[in-house]
Amino acid sequence: MAVVLQKIERADRDLIRRLGEAGVATVHEAQGRTGLMAANMRPIQQDLAIAGSAVTISAAPGDNWMIHVAIEQLQDGDVLVLSPTAPCDMGYFGDLLATSAQARGCHTLIIDAGVRDTRDLRQMGFSVWSTAISAQGTVKETLGSVNVPIVCAGALVNPGDIIVADDDGVCVVPRDNAAAVMENTQARLDAEEAKRVRLAAGELGLDIYDMRPRLAEKGLKYV
Amino acid sequence: MAVVLQKIERADRDLIRRLGEAGVATVHEAQGRTGLMAANMRPIQQDLAIAGSAVTISAAPGDNWMIHVAIEQLQDGDVLVLSPTAPCDMGYFGDLLATSAQARGCHTLIIDAGVRDTRDLRQMGFSVWSTAISAQGTVKETLGSVNVPIVCAGALVNPGDIIVADDDGVCVVPRDNAAAVMENTQARLDAEEAKRVRLAAGELGLDIYDMRPRLAEKGLKYV
Amino acid sequence: MAVVLQKIERADRDLIRRLGEAGVATVHEAQGRTGLMAANMRPIQQDLAIAGSAVTISAAPGDNWMIHVAIEQLQDGDVLVLSPTAPCDMGYFGDLLATSAQARGCHTLIIDAGVRDTRDLRQMGFSVWSTAISAQGTVKETLGSVNVPIVCAGALVNPGDIIVADDDGVCVVPRDNAAAVMENTQARLDAEEAKRVRLAAGELGLDIYDMRPRLAEKGLKYV
Amino acid sequence: MAVVLQKIERADRDLIRRLGEAGVATVHEAQGRTGLMAANMRPIQQDLAIAGSAVTISAAPGDNWMIHVAIEQLQDGDVLVLSPTAPCDMGYFGDLLATSAQARGCHTLIIDAGVRDTRDLRQMGFSVWSTAISAQGTVKETLGSVNVPIVCAGALVNPGDIIVADDDGVCVVPRDNAAAVMENTQARLDAEEAKRVRLAAGELGLDIYDMRPRLAEKGLKYV
Amino acid sequence: MAVVLQKIERADRDLIRRLGEAGVATVHEAQGRTGLMAANMRPIQQDLAIAGSAVTISAAPGDNWMIHVAIEQLQDGDVLVLSPTAPCDMGYFGDLLATSAQARGCHTLIIDAGVRDTRDLRQMGFSVWSTAISAQGTVKETLGSVNVPIVCAGALVNPGDIIVADDDGVCVVPRDNAAAVMENTQARLDAEEAKRVRLAAGELGLDIYDMRPRLAEKGLKYV
Amino acid sequence: MAVVLQKIERADRDLIRRLGEAGVATVHEAQGRTGLMAANMRPIQQDLAIAGSAVTISAAPGDNWMIHVAIEQLQDGDVLVLSPTAPCDMGYFGDLLATSAQARGCHTLIIDAGVRDTRDLRQMGFSVWSTAISAQGTVKETLGSVNVPIVCAGALVNPGDIIVADDDGVCVVPRDNAAAVMENTQARLDAEEAKRVRLAAGELGLDIYDMRPRLAEKGLKYV
Repeated sequence: MAVVLQKIERADRDLIRRLGEAGVATVHEAQGRTGLMAANMRPIQQDLAIAGSAVTISAAPGDNWMIHVAIEQLQDGDVLVLSPTAPCDMGYFGDLLATSAQARGCHTLIIDAGVRDTRDLRQMGFSVWSTAISAQGTVKETLGSVNVPIVCAGALVNPGDIIVADDDGVCVVPRDNAAAVMENTQARLDAEEAKRVRLAAGELGLDIYDMRPRLAEKGLKYV
Repeated sequence: MAVVLQKIERADRDLIRRLGEAGVATVHEAQGRTGLMAANMRPIQQDLAIAGSAVTISAAPGDNWMIHVAIEQLQDGDVLVLSPTAPCDMGYFGDLLATSAQARGCHTLIIDAGVRDTRDLRQMGFSVWSTAISAQGTVKETLGSVNVPIVCAGALVNPGDIIVADDDGVCVVPRDNAAAVMENTQARLDAEEAKRVRLAAGELGLDIYDMRPRLAEKGLKYV
Repeated sequence: MAVVLQKIERADRDLIRRLGEAGVATVHEAQGRTGLMAANMRPIQQDLAIAGSAVTISAAPGDNWMIHVAIEQLQDGDVLVLSPTAPCDMGYFGDLLATSAQARGCHTLIIDAGVRDTRDLRQMGFSVWSTAISAQGTVKETLGSVNVPIVCAGALVNPGDIIVADDDGVCVVPRDNAAAVMENTQARLDAEEAKRVRLAAGELGLDIYDMRPRLAEKGLKYV
Repeated sequence: MAVVLQKIERADRDLIRRLGEAGVATVHEAQGRTGLMAANMRPIQQDLAIAGSAVTISAAPGDNWMIHVAIEQLQDGDVLVLSPTAPCDMGYFGDLLATSAQARGCHTLIIDAGVRDTRDLRQMGFSVWSTAISAQGTVKETLGSVNVPIVCAGALVNPGDIIVADDDGVCVVPRDNAAAVMENTQARLDAEEAKRVRLAAGELGLDIYDMRPRLAEKGLKYV
Repeated sequence: MAVVLQKIERADRDLIRRLGEAGVATVHEAQGRTGLMAANMRPIQQDLAIAGSAVTISAAPGDNWMIHVAIEQLQDGDVLVLSPTAPCDMGYFGDLLATSAQARGCHTLIIDAGVRDTRDLRQMGFSVWSTAISAQGTVKETLGSVNVPIVCAGALVNPGDIIVADDDGVCVVPRDNAAAVMENTQARLDAEEAKRVRLAAGELGLDIYDMRPRLAEKGLKYV
Repeated sequence: MAVVLQKIERADRDLIRRLGEAGVATVHEAQGRTGLMAANMRPIQQDLAIAGSAVTISAAPGDNWMIHVAIEQLQDGDVLVLSPTAPCDMGYFGDLLATSAQARGCHTLIIDAGVRDTRDLRQMGFSVWSTAISAQGTVKETLGSVNVPIVCAGALVNPGDIIVADDDGVCVVPRDNAAAVMENTQARLDAEEAKRVRLAAGELGLDIYDMRPRLAEKGLKYV
């Protein structure tokens, strides 16, 4: 049951970069409102947006042994994504593991549990989205798996999927959909830009989107 | 049932400004400890204090259609206040709606639900107090009402009431009470200032407030 | 039952300072993973680490009278630690009480409840770790005790114990253990530094900690 | 600020009885999906439905003094509705207060806080919907008000409003709307009964409500 | 995006029945501790254990339209499993939908959201595991999908998977693994029975499982 | 650090029995409102009251190894009290461990975490107060301690302390205080009985406790 998948496929780097720049809200819309992690997945830093390829970890609750195993599998631009098999909000990850991950080109952790040394992590430029912050250390006793499909904060993550994260949360883009999602995303960005100009000029969404007839039909009364 | 009240009365601008400068904790005390929203109503920015006139929105859960309707009703200095009819923490509001609200002079949203594009909102100078942050978009299918009385995060809000918000939370001042509340508030601010000087000089609250006799009477033992 | 203990012993100042510099995560490990407060004890400021001697307050829910009593007992470098006898997240403490505490050399509050005037507190350099932020004021009606043993956010605190707090949370070091804990802490800091250098150079934890044989023995499969 | 309103109007007894028999879900629908308390308002007994006239209590957190004051105002068939001015989940009410309320014909408490002696209350036939169960007793130090408008678990309650409660939660029917709401409620009950027969016979909602064309128009694909 | 898969495969009925009799805790162990839904998924009835084939529903938040669509797809012994695309704890399901589902042989709902008419459901013998109870009705405006893979309360569910539920929670057994899981389950049941007899006779787990040497080796001290 | 204290003192059996019959609310009052566990400590059965001597377990999160160790220390009438060193709500205890505990005369578990096999436990007459129910099994890898002081759900528990538990929650009576607490408790029970008779006869608490003058003095207005 405990297994490490050593070869995973990753999406095109340029595609990943562009998804990261577009941001979570737009990418999530562009892929049909799927793949969003739960809203309690919060960043330990502010005003940062990232994207990368998921290296997944299924860990026993309160046990961070598999992070050491996963770090060996990291490539430049990867994002560690950890979900424990039961909720247990200890501090699975701190500055030493971050140092090791950074040495292999990974600068982000997504974890449905806790982290520690958060000030050091911010200073190192290692970004984290987590559901908790805790100084409580874990043990290294029970095996888990690396690069298997996991459910993290309510979203299914396959190894090699693209993780997009910013101040709004974390979204997972399945690797095979990445190009199509980016195409949709770009169309949305372009459309939004045009709307932003009109809205900034004082035009109303009621008129831009032609909402008035449908509001009237549904029975909205102005008094 | 779905209605938009187009004419609401607003409080005096100078009064609103002064309430905002006094801050939530003092204003809340000054009006007899009423009107405070629940403590999970948190700002997406830090070290900002605002005040304005409430334009209220009662929305279906997961539906932001009525925000478009409400924006048409905004005047300079207004604050949007939205409460869904059931808890549903999606992202009802983002940078496009903020652009539209700002074009009409509104720079603040109070929402008992989620917002998105939080980094953009901070950069635009659009302030938000919310109970959630979520990238998840909503639909535009079900009518609600604008400028009706609502309960938002446990506080009753009538359209035109004054919203005071800062790092401590959000307080609602009924429009008709505003002048009296500000008078109380000013008296408190003056009294606090005098006490602050004495406390900073090392005097004890035990003595300033003459607490020792009552503590002894209630039976406090020093050992 | 309501009592104020006026003489408490405090740990050595240099020891306290060194524990504060080491930080919560390391100190917590060094004393056998004990004494950590619950993870919902969060700072109102960022990137600050402190340590000091606990002056404890057991207060009735929604009643801050005993803080006035406790302030008289403060000495330079003390930390106020308050736990209500039932959960009640109002704002027990604000800028006036902070002014008074600072006048006696105390610059930190640890509270399993709420605080207010958070912007002012940050500006004054008064640090707080709390489980809530609330503008709601409390009453002064019911006695409690000062400098008695309390359970605060799940951790037992005796008066004079050392409080270590940073972005990761709050840890309590029993006064009598402080020297031994600091010795352990220093050993950990030294060992961590050596490991950090090796990890930064790209060595793997798998090798540094010789984990591979035990992983294999437990049955981890690489595919 | 602290006031007891001694004369309140109550709705017709037969109307109250009929609303209680219809149940929360139907009554809530029948009055346009308004007046529902939050879902954490849970019964301490199972399979019971009640209705009665609200005698409201606004209490200081952790203080049950006003319940004694309110009991004097009770009439046969009344329901006590208590909301503290800040969340504080102690046990405000137990078997002695229930004995006193029962002596005046009141058999139900709705409280956005805690109760105790729950086994005794069940045995006495005194029903409770609360947001907590706690053995922790309260004090009698701070005034509040009786029979003023309150917000309880997110719903506005005026004295004399009709409280409907069952296993699904608690709903407030404004006194003046009661007859109209009951008319709507009866229409719904009749319509539901007819549908229940058809559904039990195996007819589908898709057909009874003629949903297929609209599903197709919106784009639902069957594969 | 909105799709109804009309043909799904189901596991063998006898296998399903036996998994249900074994119960959640044993089945979950037997399949390597996978597939468990989150612990806030609670039953509305007590002392009941069920198993059935999943008919899955991905619904918009606060919208129960797709339940009507799903009911047409039900076969005898099926279990409805609904997850909204964002958390929104309204009452998606009540006695009318239960009547319709029962007419097609389905007697259970698993829902990561709320239900209503809970007393009626218990009386009808329709069992529910849900994360909320709410009288608040939903709308029928937005399409979703039926019989697509969903994440429900943290567990991946494919249509046709076996749902096992009892007082301990809900577990999902992938259809293809069902026979192997049942074999493991039976082995565990047999082994547990033997141990139960020895434990009831007063033998200690310390001896039955030969734990003493390993405890000593790890350093446990008896004093 | 990992230690088992084999000899603990226990309170007098008759005293324990009488405290159990008095119930949590009264005992908690009688010992000055101390020792109450948090309100999320809930029973898995209804209408049961117990008392017994605490055998304490400090366990690693997600690890139930020490329960096996503790069972060997049990005597007739003991209550197991377990607190993990970090929150982790898995199912640490089920019917096999209950069988073993019962064989040694222990019929109750108090756990600040989860249990499983809840239906079996009810059928066996093994009572549980827990903060969670979870089918998720734990590991046996990390040492903890038995019969050391622990903080469980916010209350300090020393081995041999008396645990009183009923539908209202769980209270800890320090062993040395037990006789004095029972004396206070009996006085309260007697006084309550007298008041109950008067209240049932329609006398008001306002009069029995002579509250009217103090209410008037504080400024309560009747209108």
